[in-house]
Amino acid sequence: MTNERPINFGAGPSALPETVLEEACKGLLNFQGTGIGVAEISHRSKEFTSLVASLESNIRTQLDVPPTHKIIFTQGGGTGQFSAVVLNMLARHRLLHPDLSDEQRVMDYVITGSWSKKAETEAKRLGGASVHIVVDASTKSKDSKSFDAIPAHEDFDFSADPALIYYCENETVDGVQFSNDEQSSASFPFHLLPAGGLWPLVADYSSSFMSRKIPRIADHAVIFAGAQKNIGPAGLTILIVRQDCIVDVDAAAKLGAIPVPITMSYKINADAGSLYNTPSTLSIYIAGLVLERSKQLGGVVYFESLNGRKAQKVYTALREGETKGAYRSKVKEGSGSWMNVVFDVLGDNAESRFLAGAEALGMMALKGHRSVGGIRISLYNAITEEQTDRIVAYLKDFATQNA
Amino acid sequence: MTNERPINFGAGPSALPETVLEEACKGLLNFQGTGIGVAEISHRSKEFTSLVASLESNIRTQLDVPPTHKIIFTQGGGTGQFSAVVLNMLARHRLLHPDLSDEQRVMDYVITGSWSKKAETEAKRLGGASVHIVVDASTKSKDSKSFDAIPAHEDFDFSADPALIYYCENETVDGVQFSNDEQSSASFPFHLLPAGGLWPLVADYSSSFMSRKIPRIADHAVIFAGAQKNIGPAGLTILIVRQDCIVDVDAAAKLGAIPVPITMSYKINADAGSLYNTPSTLSIYIAGLVLERSKQLGGVVYFESLNGRKAQKVYTALREGETKGAYRSKVKEGSGSWMNVVFDVLGDNAESRFLAGAEALGMMALKGHRSVGGIRISLYNAITEEQTDRIVAYLKDFATQNA
Repeated sequence: MTNERPINFGAGPSALPETVLEEACKGLLNFQGTGIGVAEISHRSKEFTSLVASLESNIRTQLDVPPTHKIIFTQGGGTGQFSAVVLNMLARHRLLHPDLSDEQRVMDYVITGSWSKKAETEAKRLGGASVHIVVDASTKSKDSKSFDAIPAHEDFDFSADPALIYYCENETVDGVQFSNDEQSSASFPFHLLPAGGLWPLVADYSSSFMSRKIPRIADHAVIFAGAQKNIGPAGLTILIVRQDCIVDVDAAAKLGAIPVPITMSYKINADAGSLYNTPSTLSIYIAGLVLERSKQLGGVVYFESLNGRKAQKVYTALREGETKGAYRSKVKEGSGSWMNVVFDVLGDNAESRFLAGAEALGMMALKGHRSVGGIRISLYNAITEEQTDRIVAYLKDFATQNA
Repeated sequence: MTNERPINFGAGPSALPETVLEEACKGLLNFQGTGIGVAEISHRSKEFTSLVASLESNIRTQLDVPPTHKIIFTQGGGTGQFSAVVLNMLARHRLLHPDLSDEQRVMDYVITGSWSKKAETEAKRLGGASVHIVVDASTKSKDSKSFDAIPAHEDFDFSADPALIYYCENETVDGVQFSNDEQSSASFPFHLLPAGGLWPLVADYSSSFMSRKIPRIADHAVIFAGAQKNIGPAGLTILIVRQDCIVDVDAAAKLGAIPVPITMSYKINADAGSLYNTPSTLSIYIAGLVLERSKQLGGVVYFESLNGRKAQKVYTALREGETKGAYRSKVKEGSGSWMNVVFDVLGDNAESRFLAGAEALGMMALKGHRSVGGIRISLYNAITEEQTDRIVAYLKDFATQNA
């Protein structure tokens, strides 16, 4: 049956392993022999709470999440967290520094693509502090407006004591990703952060979560991710939060911080074991199946190796096609995302022909984001090496035919 | 196969029609012949947006939602809306009356059970206005603390120009529901609201949505409901919002209103057709299947008739058992919920025997909410009349044997 399904290179919601979908079908009708489907049982039943515990354990073990950090499941996606991280981190900063004015209180944003830009816009919209741009990669790009690379380390300008330092690890739209190699010039410049102390470092890992290890995970205040790229259906949001960032938001509000809606309070959710209110049960269940399968395959270590090979194959074919004049990468070498490879197909009508040719071969959802156009190949965990080889072969064939 | 499944009388997440679950299985693997599963396709694809449109149309048609009202899908459940209604309605009131102080600005809460109490607690926690209790049913109850009835109309004390008037149509935990018969003393006292004008009337319909018509739907500012009772898996929240309540929350914040997280702004969600960010796609899909089935059966009109019969059968058996001394209803006659029937089983160890006996007959999830104990029979749309007859027969047998 595998060969009959089209290959889904969509950027999200995206491909899920077929074996997981088959297992999920069974669970929908009869969950663990209860006779009741997984979408129908109480989220407070022992069957469901053990499922939440197992999902958490799979994330903690595979990513080496340290005991200093809690894992929280919530709803609302990355966009919900654009607000929640601001509200919770501002509350924390207010409790630490109650006397600062909103102008003196600073939030640092690293802008490397459309998603970090959106997050920064939300921070400004909410107010409660001034926003400082650590670096805006678009101002450093060829055309001074697109996002085509991780900026050089010397261009990062961090504040002294910000309420948060925000970055997006992988920019799904622009195809720009921080390198996981600390020696690379495209890595996140952890060495430029002030020495000592607990950094208020916030990372959006939505489109790379569980695809490879998280560098310096223990040094993060908050890591968040929507599930719908590598690990499950939309509707589930995963948070990894250092315990000093789980604060009493009501105490902070009494000191003047912005009131925090209860579903966005990290403390309320953490104290309730992510079951303060009914969670997105079906998404949690399927994410659990995906990560159980991942564990059996060797965990994130396995996917890191696999995803590295997949990305290298695609970028190699893309570079070859560039030398033939068939393609133009949108991203500078070294900053290219392992998850989302974005490029233009050169020549009259060539993009349409590229898409139609791919579709004829059963390869779908390759259109770039509507804001930037072009082609985007998403290579999330569920895309196999064999499927990658097929798009690589197509990239080569198309380049040759169009040379 | 139907007879092999246990009957799930759980209060939510709760039973779904088996035919829908079977259909959902197919969609998980291959959605509408795309070859790609419904959890894997883009929420911006034409396949998915037409699914959202069809879900909306099914709600609008079956509930007679007037053109003055928008239907919005979001995440976060009823608890998320405890905050969102406050934030959006306070923003609206701020724009209408920019000069009132927080003390002068009032939010009216009708308290008829644990859920409206929780909503009121959240309103107080967020601040931005004073909270006025229209009536607290617990102060009128036999023991002056439990919620056992809809209070008499003369006990309702509405404010003159509140930012919102909040009530919970069906209290899932306490089994208290407003009557849908306007002549009943347990109906919502619409006639006591100030004449004319657009009422800021907010109703939590989480556990009765789509189970019967909504009285005076056009007079509501906001109706909200989590999906996980009558229409689908958890993770989807449905809003029906009158257009004058879809306001520019940023303009209100400039006038001093509490900043609203972007995912909670009704305007942002309405303007984006509920697709501002990735929604809980799988929950939307399954809710769509449930309401399509509902339409084929005759819509909400069909379920109103069915649910009325189901409730009457159960309450009749309960009253008979009361006269035999086997049960004690927790709710006064006339205020009993059609969806959640709550009562105590009298006698030593009788509750455990009741539960064990039911389980032996394949009837599950009958334990009352942990905060109130006792028995709770939830009779959501997916519970058939035949299944209701089985619990009714058991109620009668148990009462006879324990008389």
